[in-house]
Amino acid sequence: MDDPGGRMRNIKLIVQYDGTGLAGFQAQPAQRTIQGELERHLGKICGHAIRVIGAGRTDAGVHALGQVVNFQTHGTVPTDRIPVALNSLLSRQIAVTAAEEVASSFHAQYDARGKAYRYSMLTRPCRSPFLDRFAWHVPKPLDMAGMQAGAEYLVGRHDFTSFCAAKAEAADRRRELLAADWAKSGDVLRLTLVANGFLHNMARIIVGTLVEVGLGRRSAETVRTALKARERAAAGRTAPPHGLCLLRVIYDEVSA
Amino acid sequence: MDDPGGRMRNIKLIVQYDGTGLAGFQAQPAQRTIQGELERHLGKICGHAIRVIGAGRTDAGVHALGQVVNFQTHGTVPTDRIPVALNSLLSRQIAVTAAEEVASSFHAQYDARGKAYRYSMLTRPCRSPFLDRFAWHVPKPLDMAGMQAGAEYLVGRHDFTSFCAAKAEAADRRRELLAADWAKSGDVLRLTLVANGFLHNMARIIVGTLVEVGLGRRSAETVRTALKARERAAAGRTAPPHGLCLLRVIYDEVSA
Repeated sequence: MDDPGGRMRNIKLIVQYDGTGLAGFQAQPAQRTIQGELERHLGKICGHAIRVIGAGRTDAGVHALGQVVNFQTHGTVPTDRIPVALNSLLSRQIAVTAAEEVASSFHAQYDARGKAYRYSMLTRPCRSPFLDRFAWHVPKPLDMAGMQAGAEYLVGRHDFTSFCAAKAEAADRRRELLAADWAKSGDVLRLTLVANGFLHNMARIIVGTLVEVGLGRRSAETVRTALKARERAAAGRTAPPHGLCLLRVIYDEVSA
Repeated sequence: MDDPGGRMRNIKLIVQYDGTGLAGFQAQPAQRTIQGELERHLGKICGHAIRVIGAGRTDAGVHALGQVVNFQTHGTVPTDRIPVALNSLLSRQIAVTAAEEVASSFHAQYDARGKAYRYSMLTRPCRSPFLDRFAWHVPKPLDMAGMQAGAEYLVGRHDFTSFCAAKAEAADRRRELLAADWAKSGDVLRLTLVANGFLHNMARIIVGTLVEVGLGRRSAETVRTALKARERAAAGRTAPPHGLCLLRVIYDEVSA
């Protein structure tokens, strides 16, 4: 064997993170990001520079229970040793829960068929030492029926320009929202969103708009008119990032 | 009215805290403690020095969802304004969820008829960015049936000397354990303990001993023999504090 390294492998990882205080997924100079931390420590483990591809570029402060990334390596570390090795180097805010070798063609971003996000809110008057990192504190009663009615207007295939950061790069702003369901557990409200893709800030603008419905500041019907307007100003405010969590990324079975 | 302050009131508070990095409940010089933080900020709100009495002196790192405290004040701040005023001053790790005026005789510690604690563990191989502050990471399969069988031996009225820190001050080490129930939710195991009182480290030594049963290092039967031995060395190790949470304090209805 002339090759000092191993054969080239494509490795897929499942990554969880508490995004509090992190500058989001995407690597940026002089900032702590999930991609940056993964690349830095994988470089040590694999013995060469690593480029990590993430399924979703979550914003600063957003969390993940099921982010998916992949990277190519000719290092010799066994695949099943990668989570333990990586978790011993990563800060406690980030954890790799699984690693597997996948087809060389697998691309965590381009092959993603959909994503599920969950947004959490705490509605009791008092803040919570346990939930404040992971839930938006809206200390007022919210009209669940109105918020669900508003959410229903968004389900389906639509142009989501109104629910997308004005600065977003995407040219085609049509997406298919497969589910938008509110659930209540005590003082905690959660909105689960499943779509074939999310535009920049889409989940947070949907939440911010529906909360305006829940507070009685706009009717559920205005969610439909906002959608039709195809301009950012027609929708509501962007909900804060810390209530949002990337639950999972959906792939065709064959590619993962 | 000659009195510059208001009439003397006895106020009961419900307090929640994430104990991470705090030096426990009891005030100590030059340490951040729950009692110390409450007394410092209540002093500002009430306009005079405040002495806070807590139902349970939780250890450093232990959390609370339902700690109960009381204090006497002749300050004029309305009782229902105290939570908002206090929460605006307290660090985000501590929150007061309720305040009410109670009989002048009410004493949060002496009047407590019982307490409920919950201990949480994460058993999956990988640590968790979300649960690591609140659950002991035991990355091995645990025998739930064995741990429950061991727990059953402890239910009832017993001398818990074996399950008490050797340095504990209590002379009478008999307590009545009313419930000791394990529950499993995915990778998370939780033990709920309800007793008329807890000796120093009692909950954590019970958990540490039962986990040794769960790992197969001792039989469930040895929990009974440990109890009978009435010496600390007969029981298992003390589980770490960060898995423990004071759920609630039980009072006779009349006193609260």
